Amino acid sequence: MRAVDLICRKRDGGALNRSQIDFFVAGVTDGSLPDYQVSALLMAILLRGMTPEETAWLTDAMVRSGVRVDYPDLDGTPVDKHSTGGVGDKTSLVLAPLAVACDAVVPMMSGRGLGHTGGTLDKLESIPGFRTDLSLASLRQAIASIGCALIGQTSEVAPADRKLYALRDVTGTVESIPLISASIMSKKIAEGIAGLVLDVKTGSGAFMKTLDESRALARSLVTIGEASGVRSEALITRMDAPLGTHIGNASEVIECLEVLKGGGPDDTRDLSIVLAARMLIVAGIEPDEAAAERRIRGALTSGAGLEVFRRVIDNQGGDPRVIDDYGRLPSAPDEDRILAPTAGFVSLEPESIGRAAVALGAGRATLEEAIDPGVGVEIVARAGAQVAAGDVVLLVHHRAGRGLAHARRLLQKAVGIGDAPPARRPLILERITHE
Amino acid sequence: MRAVDLICRKRDGGALNRSQIDFFVAGVTDGSLPDYQVSALLMAILLRGMTPEETAWLTDAMVRSGVRVDYPDLDGTPVDKHSTGGVGDKTSLVLAPLAVACDAVVPMMSGRGLGHTGGTLDKLESIPGFRTDLSLASLRQAIASIGCALIGQTSEVAPADRKLYALRDVTGTVESIPLISASIMSKKIAEGIAGLVLDVKTGSGAFMKTLDESRALARSLVTIGEASGVRSEALITRMDAPLGTHIGNASEVIECLEVLKGGGPDDTRDLSIVLAARMLIVAGIEPDEAAAERRIRGALTSGAGLEVFRRVIDNQGGDPRVIDDYGRLPSAPDEDRILAPTAGFVSLEPESIGRAAVALGAGRATLEEAIDPGVGVEIVARAGAQVAAGDVVLLVHHRAGRGLAHARRLLQKAVGIGDAPPARRPLILERITHE
Repeated sequence: MRAVDLICRKRDGGALNRSQIDFFVAGVTDGSLPDYQVSALLMAILLRGMTPEETAWLTDAMVRSGVRVDYPDLDGTPVDKHSTGGVGDKTSLVLAPLAVACDAVVPMMSGRGLGHTGGTLDKLESIPGFRTDLSLASLRQAIASIGCALIGQTSEVAPADRKLYALRDVTGTVESIPLISASIMSKKIAEGIAGLVLDVKTGSGAFMKTLDESRALARSLVTIGEASGVRSEALITRMDAPLGTHIGNASEVIECLEVLKGGGPDDTRDLSIVLAARMLIVAGIEPDEAAAERRIRGALTSGAGLEVFRRVIDNQGGDPRVIDDYGRLPSAPDEDRILAPTAGFVSLEPESIGRAAVALGAGRATLEEAIDPGVGVEIVARAGAQVAAGDVVLLVHHRAGRGLAHARRLLQKAVGIGDAPPARRPLILERITHE
Repeated sequence: MRAVDLICRKRDGGALNRSQIDFFVAGVTDGSLPDYQVSALLMAILLRGMTPEETAWLTDAMVRSGVRVDYPDLDGTPVDKHSTGGVGDKTSLVLAPLAVACDAVVPMMSGRGLGHTGGTLDKLESIPGFRTDLSLASLRQAIASIGCALIGQTSEVAPADRKLYALRDVTGTVESIPLISASIMSKKIAEGIAGLVLDVKTGSGAFMKTLDESRALARSLVTIGEASGVRSEALITRMDAPLGTHIGNASEVIECLEVLKGGGPDDTRDLSIVLAARMLIVAGIEPDEAAAERRIRGALTSGAGLEVFRRVIDNQGGDPRVIDDYGRLPSAPDEDRILAPTAGFVSLEPESIGRAAVALGAGRATLEEAIDPGVGVEIVARAGAQVAAGDVVLLVHHRAGRGLAHARRLLQKAVGIGDAPPARRPLILERITHE
């Protein structure tokens, strides 16, 4: 088999067969396929597409490029949630403890923030001592002892994806539904889960800006999951304003702790409950949404979810005292304010707010950059709120002015003031299941 | 400027501006742009296309990646011919001497055979001692003394093209009219010519199989030439049977010598005369086709063309005695025959015949392979000829059976016998000039 023949076939709009896709992924994994051939094929895939069958084969080959984790003697069904990424999206830290408190097993491997969206690992690492770089052995031990681990992707899992992703990032081949799908699902399937709930964001702050694109991605993800024996479903949820009230790593941890204590913003709480309930359903723990939500709300009210989170923090080397003493979390020393320029109803453009947080140091432009866990943006007047001219809309938590000028420009652009209250639309737009 | 932004722009169907194209070509030339970004952009160009303006800028940047040769104190206008490649296409060896005999100046840089088509350099090098690797200084000296050089591309000429071509060959990005056009024209413009005649082949033995594709390529080439101040025109000529009677390096040299002596097959002679006449017109030596053809025919009849070829051979280290003693040229020791399976009218599929010659050793699959100048295919019964069952159609000149079985299979497939004589169509279908 010659790589150039595969490239020409895809270039001309043809479908690759299973052995061609295996050849491609094996060549990426062992480095025998030169990067210039890989990137030419990636561009041809982006522009010509892939059939659902090709995408499933690609995912499977990427799973088989590494270890598919198993959990011997496990009493329970490992499940997970994946979000396609949004601004202020912090539900993992709430829903994983809640689901585990209801007998689910959650071996969650997450990523870091890149671009304008945050990453679960960065949030967790704002807890002093918290380690996300667990080995497979430690992961299995965590699952056996407390039923939950919140960690990064280990090197054994889907190595082909890591290599492909690095190349896609610098060759303009990120924005492809088949490639995105295979990347997401290969990592999740390799975790050894049997059920998966996908939170596919849609709107101006999401990767997929339109409902049609989001639906296409959701269908692609669910199809791949089911083809690999993972019971999968997707919720399409709105991302046309930040989720919750805080953007920034330590402050998002605090928001999650508030939710687990029964408080916190409505949208963060509600979305976490719905997603955690769907996890119980795909795990086969509860038969329907009503029963599952009742059970999750019970774990919230009783504090059982918070207790699980305490055990996870403790198990992964973090300081559990942060739960009762937020002063132990990093915070930025300086504060600035963004005011409403006129009276009216607030709208908040999430992507600019996400970029402002990155400018302050809460995120990074390349994976090598360090982040500042204390800085971020706090939403005082949420989307739809009525304000008078001069009211505070946003608080900017910065460190000695670092990135502040850039962040202020972005935030002023992000705040809109309208004459009428925006139409209230549900946070969860659709549920996509296997056909 | 970031390479990934250029890639994304072209991927999304946008046009690159001049400074973006300059950045790309400079990065290819100095190696600062990694191959994987270059190949992703090449694939995006292949699938999204380029405007005529972008193609002209690309060509110009590739010319400027190296030296644009000049000929100080030259009394005359340097002109050249380029063919897009066909089977048995050997006109360069006839038309260059004829045009030079009529006061044209021809600094012709040619390529080697690759795939099923032959290359001028390989043919010339079948003449014992003939060197095609002249330096720029030797090229200028040859032009000053005899008005002609038949050489390979020097390393100073369009280095960006050499790098791009090597990458295109292994990344499925050869078949793009803008990339083909820029590759051909950058080398020709860099030769320092002021006029160019393009022989764009069309048909089953050509790179462009349809008249529409051939027209599009011809228009693209002529537009680029004129934009660079090179008076350019293209003839679209048929390649649905091999040109002339011989395919194979030394035997093609003999066919050319026969033409220059007043004999040889009609089609090789006629096409060479027409192309040489057009060279006199683009050089401004003759005002119209009638005058130019009359003058070229005069150089053929008088033997002046043959004399120029003798001087070229002598100047480039070859043995001019081959002209009068074909026994000094390499030849294959063994012969096989392909017979007509039934009675009827012959058709000859050129691509298979070209591939058969390669199988025998007359061509190469990679540029590193050595070729055998003596082997080849001789056409006894030409396309349209009436034969009886068992008549010899082709003679196969091979060396001890090397590649013979494969070549025989290809040749048997190439020979068709029809009930009626094929329609006679002109060899030259169209002339494309600048609009």
